[in-house]
Amino acid sequence: MSLIKTVAQQARRTNVVASKASSSSAHPLGGYNENKAQLRRETTAQYYRDHDIHNAAKKDSVRLKAAALLFTGRIPSDIDLIRSAQYLQSELPVRLAHRIKGFRSLPFIVVTNPHILKVMEQYIRSFKVISSFNDGRMVKKQDQVEDFTHLLEILLDDHGSVIDDLTQGFSSCHDHVLDIFDGDEGKAHELVQSFLDKTLTSRLGIRLLAQHHLLLKDQIGKNSRYFIPRHDRIGIVESRWKPAKDIEAIARKIRESWMFHCDNPPRVKLNGHTEAEFPYIPIGVDYILQEVFKNAFRAVIEAHSNSARQMPPIDVTIAVNREDFTIRIADRGKGMKSDVINKIWRYHFTTARGRSNYGGVGDLLSMANSNEKELAGYGIGLPISKAYAEYLGGNLEIKSMSGIGTDVYLTLKHIDPHKGHSFRI
Amino acid sequence: MSLIKTVAQQARRTNVVASKASSSSAHPLGGYNENKAQLRRETTAQYYRDHDIHNAAKKDSVRLKAAALLFTGRIPSDIDLIRSAQYLQSELPVRLAHRIKGFRSLPFIVVTNPHILKVMEQYIRSFKVISSFNDGRMVKKQDQVEDFTHLLEILLDDHGSVIDDLTQGFSSCHDHVLDIFDGDEGKAHELVQSFLDKTLTSRLGIRLLAQHHLLLKDQIGKNSRYFIPRHDRIGIVESRWKPAKDIEAIARKIRESWMFHCDNPPRVKLNGHTEAEFPYIPIGVDYILQEVFKNAFRAVIEAHSNSARQMPPIDVTIAVNREDFTIRIADRGKGMKSDVINKIWRYHFTTARGRSNYGGVGDLLSMANSNEKELAGYGIGLPISKAYAEYLGGNLEIKSMSGIGTDVYLTLKHIDPHKGHSFRI
Repeated sequence: MSLIKTVAQQARRTNVVASKASSSSAHPLGGYNENKAQLRRETTAQYYRDHDIHNAAKKDSVRLKAAALLFTGRIPSDIDLIRSAQYLQSELPVRLAHRIKGFRSLPFIVVTNPHILKVMEQYIRSFKVISSFNDGRMVKKQDQVEDFTHLLEILLDDHGSVIDDLTQGFSSCHDHVLDIFDGDEGKAHELVQSFLDKTLTSRLGIRLLAQHHLLLKDQIGKNSRYFIPRHDRIGIVESRWKPAKDIEAIARKIRESWMFHCDNPPRVKLNGHTEAEFPYIPIGVDYILQEVFKNAFRAVIEAHSNSARQMPPIDVTIAVNREDFTIRIADRGKGMKSDVINKIWRYHFTTARGRSNYGGVGDLLSMANSNEKELAGYGIGLPISKAYAEYLGGNLEIKSMSGIGTDVYLTLKHIDPHKGHSFRI
Repeated sequence: MSLIKTVAQQARRTNVVASKASSSSAHPLGGYNENKAQLRRETTAQYYRDHDIHNAAKKDSVRLKAAALLFTGRIPSDIDLIRSAQYLQSELPVRLAHRIKGFRSLPFIVVTNPHILKVMEQYIRSFKVISSFNDGRMVKKQDQVEDFTHLLEILLDDHGSVIDDLTQGFSSCHDHVLDIFDGDEGKAHELVQSFLDKTLTSRLGIRLLAQHHLLLKDQIGKNSRYFIPRHDRIGIVESRWKPAKDIEAIARKIRESWMFHCDNPPRVKLNGHTEAEFPYIPIGVDYILQEVFKNAFRAVIEAHSNSARQMPPIDVTIAVNREDFTIRIADRGKGMKSDVINKIWRYHFTTARGRSNYGGVGDLLSMANSNEKELAGYGIGLPISKAYAEYLGGNLEIKSMSGIGTDVYLTLKHIDPHKGHSFRI
């Protein structure tokens, strides 16, 4: 396991830059110090001199058809695993380089924020580690694949906190971004929005590919040369995915989490094509459903918490056709005013309660400003969900009837290539 | 009643041009004839030499706040009627001139279509008649107002067939429009769309104003100097409009019309703010609701005509809040595919069954092409409805779940000035 040591060493080495940069401002002496300034300048300038990243960012990403995952893995073997590793070995550095370029194009003041700097360095570190794996040569043997797979696992873990870090980062440099645009909220949001949309969908793609590889590895088994089918799954693809099942599971989980705050949270009622099954990649859609249900439950519970009556159910309609499928989540949580609707698609870093979470009705109700209150629950879950839905070739739309309730429409394309519209990961 | 004679004479005189122009091509000799060509050129050139229209088109239209109608007419008297006539006398020629300019900007080949030419001439005629009324001086006395009111009545009648004429006109010159854009369907539609959106919403405004005047006149009574309140109405404004009542009446009417074709058409079920009442101008919204219900009924009946079960109801949700109100009409008529949805907002003149009508299930089902079939019912009712909704300061949106059904959202602003967003007529 010398590999893991290398990753750890690399990680420590790259981190030095970040800790130096950020600790300097926290130094008890503070103020201007020529030596310190010189050091800062030098370490910062290092970010400028990385030709590998620069060159990799020039290459085009090779996005895989979701349908391709379905077919190459029909009866996966070690050969498939080697191919998968090789693809990732050449593809991931390109994608990471593109994202690093994205960080480099952000306003300087923004990237100097310790949280954002930390994420950029994670990307740089991952780029280095993957592109220098096996001395830059493609893996060929099974033990190399084992090592590479293990490396992927570590990197997935390492990047687990990226969304939280970016949330905190953009939250604390909100005023700087506003300053750059002379107080123009719209432009400030646009900058954050386009950066996060790209960064987070790219991240989703990378993670789907990495997880697909890891799951394939699991399914083939450590010492087996043959595929052991498990639960109709091939990597991240469920060959007989049943939306109704996932919807019920997610709704149940969120309903249970509300039981601490509320005697009888609303029920979820399904109708439409509840028996439909088809091949799909549930990871992204599960995330979206979770965010939408969180909002629906919160809206209904807040709107009806003072009523003795049973809460109106959340109605879910599943419509599956050859081309795509739509999941409509309709709540009777009193809806939103149009000025609120226009804001829910923005990444909200300005409120203290930036990230959406399950509970906290009391906190919500105690907020003074009504607009703020209505928006409080909408953190970054919804804009991420919209970005994900679009990345998956579909869309997420909201129609709200203020005073009555909200209808959310999630429409996604099938991945089955016979249906023509498979998205690319 | 010398006035009516004048209108009739004017009408005959102006029509000469149109009939000459169109009959010339039907002449048995056909072919090129220098005399005929000369005549044609001269009569056509007359359209070029009208400085009155040219000058009036330079003026800005004065759009009234819907709320203003509500207030000026609180206790209307003869004075209000004189003011109303004066406003119309100066405003209508400006609006008509703007529309005439619109016709003049259309491609020449389009306006030479006899149906379209006929409509343009109606506009020219109305412009002349109104701007020359009372020798161009503002009305002051009550008998002048009587005459003017009567003139308005005739003109409203005269323009009753405008939508049909434009439909027929654009339908028969469809190929010419395509030719102009070298076969580019999108650009051809854009031309027709923007012309019709403007012409038809301007027409709605003119008709609302004229009808308001006529209704005020009726309500004040021929020989009475004081207002006789009737059904909470002031002109076209209903001071306590109840959306649920109009929705029920329209739905009943359309349901009855289907009873000739179908044993048990779907029921319409209302929920939400069914008791809500507020001041509004129902004319435009009634038109829109009628079009939307026609589509909803047709969709449900077509989708379930082979089923022994009772047809699923059409669910209508009314959501009224301080700023606006939304009417959602949700049917279970199997919905539309996305390629169909993209087309329903276009004015469809290409199909033989261009205009939407109540019946004809048999005809619909016999159409060969499935896309054509799905679109068959969508004539110009829906695009007109959307244009109307936007003119009234709101919008009309459709979310369809292919395989399940369609949800239509009509959102409109209140006219109550205390609610801030009154639209202008």
